[in-house]
Amino acid sequence: MSDAHAARRERLREYCSASGADAALITRAANVRYLTGCPPLGAALLLTRDRAVLAAPEGAEPEEGGERQADPEVTRLPVPAEADAASAAAEAAARLRVRDLAVEEHDLTVARHRTVARLAGTARLLDLDRAVERLRVVKDEYEIADLRIAAEIADQALGELLESILVGRTERHLAMELERRMIDHGADRAAFPVSVGTGSHSGLEQHQPTDRRVEEGDFLTVALGARYRGYGISTARTFVIGAAPAAWQVELHRLVFHAQRAGREALGPGVEQHVPDDAARSILQAAGHAEHSVHALGHGIGLENREAPRLGPADMGKLDNRVPVTVGPGVHLPGRGGVRIEDTLVVRPPEEGGPELLTITTKELLAL
Amino acid sequence: MSDAHAARRERLREYCSASGADAALITRAANVRYLTGCPPLGAALLLTRDRAVLAAPEGAEPEEGGERQADPEVTRLPVPAEADAASAAAEAAARLRVRDLAVEEHDLTVARHRTVARLAGTARLLDLDRAVERLRVVKDEYEIADLRIAAEIADQALGELLESILVGRTERHLAMELERRMIDHGADRAAFPVSVGTGSHSGLEQHQPTDRRVEEGDFLTVALGARYRGYGISTARTFVIGAAPAAWQVELHRLVFHAQRAGREALGPGVEQHVPDDAARSILQAAGHAEHSVHALGHGIGLENREAPRLGPADMGKLDNRVPVTVGPGVHLPGRGGVRIEDTLVVRPPEEGGPELLTITTKELLAL
Repeated sequence: MSDAHAARRERLREYCSASGADAALITRAANVRYLTGCPPLGAALLLTRDRAVLAAPEGAEPEEGGERQADPEVTRLPVPAEADAASAAAEAAARLRVRDLAVEEHDLTVARHRTVARLAGTARLLDLDRAVERLRVVKDEYEIADLRIAAEIADQALGELLESILVGRTERHLAMELERRMIDHGADRAAFPVSVGTGSHSGLEQHQPTDRRVEEGDFLTVALGARYRGYGISTARTFVIGAAPAAWQVELHRLVFHAQRAGREALGPGVEQHVPDDAARSILQAAGHAEHSVHALGHGIGLENREAPRLGPADMGKLDNRVPVTVGPGVHLPGRGGVRIEDTLVVRPPEEGGPELLTITTKELLAL
Repeated sequence: MSDAHAARRERLREYCSASGADAALITRAANVRYLTGCPPLGAALLLTRDRAVLAAPEGAEPEEGGERQADPEVTRLPVPAEADAASAAAEAAARLRVRDLAVEEHDLTVARHRTVARLAGTARLLDLDRAVERLRVVKDEYEIADLRIAAEIADQALGELLESILVGRTERHLAMELERRMIDHGADRAAFPVSVGTGSHSGLEQHQPTDRRVEEGDFLTVALGARYRGYGISTARTFVIGAAPAAWQVELHRLVFHAQRAGREALGPGVEQHVPDDAARSILQAAGHAEHSVHALGHGIGLENREAPRLGPADMGKLDNRVPVTVGPGVHLPGRGGVRIEDTLVVRPPEEGGPELLTITTKELLAL
């Protein structure tokens, strides 16, 4: 893997050269990880034309799921515990006589930027902006392999939960059980706090589990994601509790199912980012649920839970091959509940079979 | 409680007036919570001489453990999902013709600061620095009551774990069980990921639980904290597994126990911050463990896991009454393991009985 990291650093060097910077200071955790593979928390990377210096707190362990083998091209610069790694990297830039240092202005606070400017000697600070985030959009097959495993872990945990008794258990307990099962199956950790919403809490995009217990006749929405070697996925399903779903439940579930399928089927290289959202949203709107579905359809996912590209109604860029995205429409009827169905997929061209579905748990309306 | 929040805002207004700002924009989550009690994630507070405007994402739920009743003096400004609340608050500042707006330069990124400056109309941006953090150092009795409950929750979870069979279980499982038990006992959530280290992993300050199983003869270090209504505590204990601790284990545990007691007993209003660390460290040094104990003795704790004041060897300020701090020395012998013992206490004067111990689980060397 250290070859892949070296290749990523090389692409960033090319970007820096083209934009007039002779070095870059990377502070955003996901970006440091992308470029080095094994950063402890709080690390910062100084990348010059011929060096890669990783400033990291002394004695710190690698991040969860991080690789422990050393990357031969990366020099470690130990930083005393509680000191700022970006400051140490800035001092290294001064020693290396960096002239134009590109920094991540969307990550550095104003106060930290001031300190970096002071310590970087005669270097002039430029804005690297989201250059590394842009490199991260298209994934290589190593990254996609990790995403597949993350999806498998979430599917396993969800599958086991569906075989257990749910009535009478609280949202909080179900959420914790899913989290525990994902870790049992090898996840670094949950990609985000598991959301379990039952009854009137179902169908919400981000619901914090409460002490409400699952009851007969409830919709139950579960949203979960595993993180494996740093890479996370996200999935959501909605089920009904008890043998006989009500007519409105069957109808609403079918509607969201169709909208989600339309969104998935619209994915492809070269497709404008708003097109999958349009496809899903028009189905929900035609059924009169425009105001019950406010969020963007989905977003990129990988080292961060939400990354580029966004799949919202106003997003104009084009999708690329090998970009993992979520597709997760939902309808929530205040006071009654609702349905959310979300998958993580990888954009692939039609000749490779179209979008690759990573989260394969059934999307049928199971009556549990 | 909204009276207490109003009083806190009034103190911040006085600080702003004195420093020449007619308004403050608060973006740091713990600070927004301190001043309003009920912010959803991503909220920002604009505080002018006569108004408090809370910009918050539409439909967002309050943070875990947040209060749900409205504060009559706080106006809510709904912000579209995915938009930046700080930008909305900056636009409100422009409408209210703010002239000098103090912002949190240690929290705002350079990119967000630029957007705020652009949207704030003719307002000039100043640095509020850590003014709210400084207000937060001394806690009121409401806050200390929440901290007491958080400590009780962690003690209960730990007590239950000690009654169960530990040999053969993995660090990860024990950590997850502690987290679950804290939530069962009413915690909002764990204040930080529970750390369980056994055998050669024991005695480390921040150890990520692994799949290593507890074995006879191991030291077992557990570090945990509960968060209750936003307020967190931190505690650590080290036990030995099996009936007969080795002589080196008894000796090392006794040493850290004495160092920790010396640190606790040195706490008091008016005491310089480095004094408790000196007291503990000199005992470890006299026993030849200078290089095995690198961290500061402790730090303030409350809405954030680490807040002012820090109790390190070079910290020169003085402790105040009613400041909750951690006291947690440790010794780790690479390859063998070690001992950490940490409490959360509230600084109190001798006439009130001295430091108030919140985390009351025994610090004896239990053989489990």
